[in-house]
Amino acid sequence: MVLFNDAMEQRLLGEYDLHLDHSGVQGKRLASRLREIAQVGFTAEMGSCRLGYSDEEKQAKDLVKQWMRDSGLEVRQDDAGNVIGRLAGKQDNLPAILSGSHVDSVPNGGHFDGVLGVLTALEVVEAWKETNYQPSRPVEVVIFSDEEGSRFNAGLTGSKAMMGDVGLSDLKSLIDHEGVPFEEVVRKNGLSANSFMDAARDTKEIAAFVEVHIEQGKQLEKNNEPVGIVTGITGLNGLEFSFKGKAGHAGNTPMDDRQDAMVAASEFILNVSFLPKKVSSTAVATVGRLHVFPNGTNVIPGEVKLSVDIRDIHRETLDELVKLIIDEAKRISTVHKVDAVWEETSLADPVLVQDFMQVLQADSLKENQIHPIYIPSGAGHDAMIVGRHVPIAMFFIRSKDGISHNPVEWTSLNDCVTGVHVLKKFLEKLQHSI
Amino acid sequence: MVLFNDAMEQRLLGEYDLHLDHSGVQGKRLASRLREIAQVGFTAEMGSCRLGYSDEEKQAKDLVKQWMRDSGLEVRQDDAGNVIGRLAGKQDNLPAILSGSHVDSVPNGGHFDGVLGVLTALEVVEAWKETNYQPSRPVEVVIFSDEEGSRFNAGLTGSKAMMGDVGLSDLKSLIDHEGVPFEEVVRKNGLSANSFMDAARDTKEIAAFVEVHIEQGKQLEKNNEPVGIVTGITGLNGLEFSFKGKAGHAGNTPMDDRQDAMVAASEFILNVSFLPKKVSSTAVATVGRLHVFPNGTNVIPGEVKLSVDIRDIHRETLDELVKLIIDEAKRISTVHKVDAVWEETSLADPVLVQDFMQVLQADSLKENQIHPIYIPSGAGHDAMIVGRHVPIAMFFIRSKDGISHNPVEWTSLNDCVTGVHVLKKFLEKLQHSI
Repeated sequence: MVLFNDAMEQRLLGEYDLHLDHSGVQGKRLASRLREIAQVGFTAEMGSCRLGYSDEEKQAKDLVKQWMRDSGLEVRQDDAGNVIGRLAGKQDNLPAILSGSHVDSVPNGGHFDGVLGVLTALEVVEAWKETNYQPSRPVEVVIFSDEEGSRFNAGLTGSKAMMGDVGLSDLKSLIDHEGVPFEEVVRKNGLSANSFMDAARDTKEIAAFVEVHIEQGKQLEKNNEPVGIVTGITGLNGLEFSFKGKAGHAGNTPMDDRQDAMVAASEFILNVSFLPKKVSSTAVATVGRLHVFPNGTNVIPGEVKLSVDIRDIHRETLDELVKLIIDEAKRISTVHKVDAVWEETSLADPVLVQDFMQVLQADSLKENQIHPIYIPSGAGHDAMIVGRHVPIAMFFIRSKDGISHNPVEWTSLNDCVTGVHVLKKFLEKLQHSI
Repeated sequence: MVLFNDAMEQRLLGEYDLHLDHSGVQGKRLASRLREIAQVGFTAEMGSCRLGYSDEEKQAKDLVKQWMRDSGLEVRQDDAGNVIGRLAGKQDNLPAILSGSHVDSVPNGGHFDGVLGVLTALEVVEAWKETNYQPSRPVEVVIFSDEEGSRFNAGLTGSKAMMGDVGLSDLKSLIDHEGVPFEEVVRKNGLSANSFMDAARDTKEIAAFVEVHIEQGKQLEKNNEPVGIVTGITGLNGLEFSFKGKAGHAGNTPMDDRQDAMVAASEFILNVSFLPKKVSSTAVATVGRLHVFPNGTNVIPGEVKLSVDIRDIHRETLDELVKLIIDEAKRISTVHKVDAVWEETSLADPVLVQDFMQVLQADSLKENQIHPIYIPSGAGHDAMIVGRHVPIAMFFIRSKDGISHNPVEWTSLNDCVTGVHVLKKFLEKLQHSI
């Protein structure tokens, strides 16, 4: 385990261009911290397992808290377990700029997702300390709890609590994959479902939130740029469809006398794959989960249940796509003489990054000799929750082969440190623009 | 559960014409036994789930064994789990006539498929006992194990073992839908793959095999006859395909940048449904079982595995259809940039019922005032396996709406008992004709 993490640090540093060490930013410090967090909850498959509100997530938070204190931040933990390290501003009564992400992971995740957003924000603070720079307004480095949600099949819990977006009864109804209730899990962290209600901040205290995150896609890699601008976080409509035909014997039912639910579902899935481009270039639709009933080799499928995950960054085109998909299900129902029913299983509105933010982000990139690439985020992030209440910005950092939620997830130290420089420049600009 | 089965028995008896109780045959006994077996592996959807070599198949066998003993049969179980109840003949050293079927079912099957063939044969023995009739040669009531094959995607395991048609390495390579090897599953039945090799009988001991089965089609219903003559059993090619694309995040992978195994599989399944009519009017092809990996709502499917069940009564058109289906998989592989691999999981040649059998069958029908209807069987049956070694005959019993492999599968008690009378007459004739 130590061997791997040493190897990880060696790989990070082996690829590193020391010219990026300037303005107080140190690649070696960032690499060492990435390694130290990777060691917490390290898995047999060489991934990370730090579920929300686990001992591992707590250990990772404790590590960062110590680094925060060492760099002179005033550290506190709120009633949802979110960690906040505050750097006083010259005008300390102004609303703060928050920057950070999360340190929890999916069950066998990678070593950059979330962690990089926390450590890049902390590295900006370190750089400011070394160069004796004080921002004009307070800056807070934040670790949001339980972003991934793998444990309770929920997620974004810390950011929702801070924004006052969680309901007490919803929290109390959560049960983890081992059957342990939310209340019992968070008690080990000295919290309770009730205490989460006290984590809500007055959003007037927050001027903006900036999140740095690995891309989890390939746009930056294709465009050969280390850092890009997130234009918004896509909204999501999750639908669950059921197509009901008639089961029957595979040998004794002539082809013309069938109501095959799988053939009907197949035409649906194929046609759904063509629909997103009819509404926008950013829309996507995915049939990811599917079950056949009874699922025997010699039985004509009587029922197929399937999920459709539909995303876009604009509410109008997302709604249009949802309608097209439901219309297609209705058409399939008629043509194949099967019943089609559906229900909404999840719904999240898109959150857009405001234009003035994107202009500032582009300036920060250009000053680091990076051509701005604009990317919609297809995945949910803490910034999506915070962005419903205060202005947000997000930077994506290039991620090798677009792979995430996987032990092989990789971002070079050059790209990580370039992200620090861009974030630093952006925060320095932003403090005067809001 | 008990309520439903009581209702099933009430429905059987409520429709029953008591005039059919003659020559020692008792409808009430048959109805009661149908209900008792239906109770084993009863599902929430009111169907049967007795997979091959499951506890439920064993329980059903144990019930029948007891009835066999009660009716005076000498009961044994062979090394493949096949149950044999032997009635001594007047000349007991003559080759025996076998009659029976199976008691396993598909995952949510009906209450007549297989079971009726076992219980009609047993009812003939009961009738002979009550009328003090002894056949001239031994008659054996048989339960073949694991006919449906839903568990290991194979099937006809018991009859193949009895006929010496299974290979040890083939058996050992079988893995069930939960990943449990054949060896481990059958061990719970006190069997082993090796023991299956010992189940092979000297076919000289067997004069003929007669199987009664529900039609699983609508020919008898259309012709308004309760029992019909099977002319032959269609050949079957079972194929298992795997389409491998690339898993990825449902939100962060643009539609044009996907290798979605489920979209590829969908186009394949849809197109396969159009291919049978290109080769013949009797050919059929069915994708009955399908699994998606990793099967998460927000993950693009990386792999889809699916079965294709292909049947026709002529070897040439069947071969032609198999070729068209494999060609389509190759085309899909190219168009969707996914890997496609396949293997043959089952293969059975068409088996014909000999003319002299069909003549005797027609006589038995006519003596029961039934006009002979001749029907090819689109489904595989144990008789297909046995028929490669010894003469076979099959009777179909009218099945409501032709539905089978489904909880609503239904055959009236009148038709079941008429089947017993026809089978009885036929066995009495057959013993002197072979």
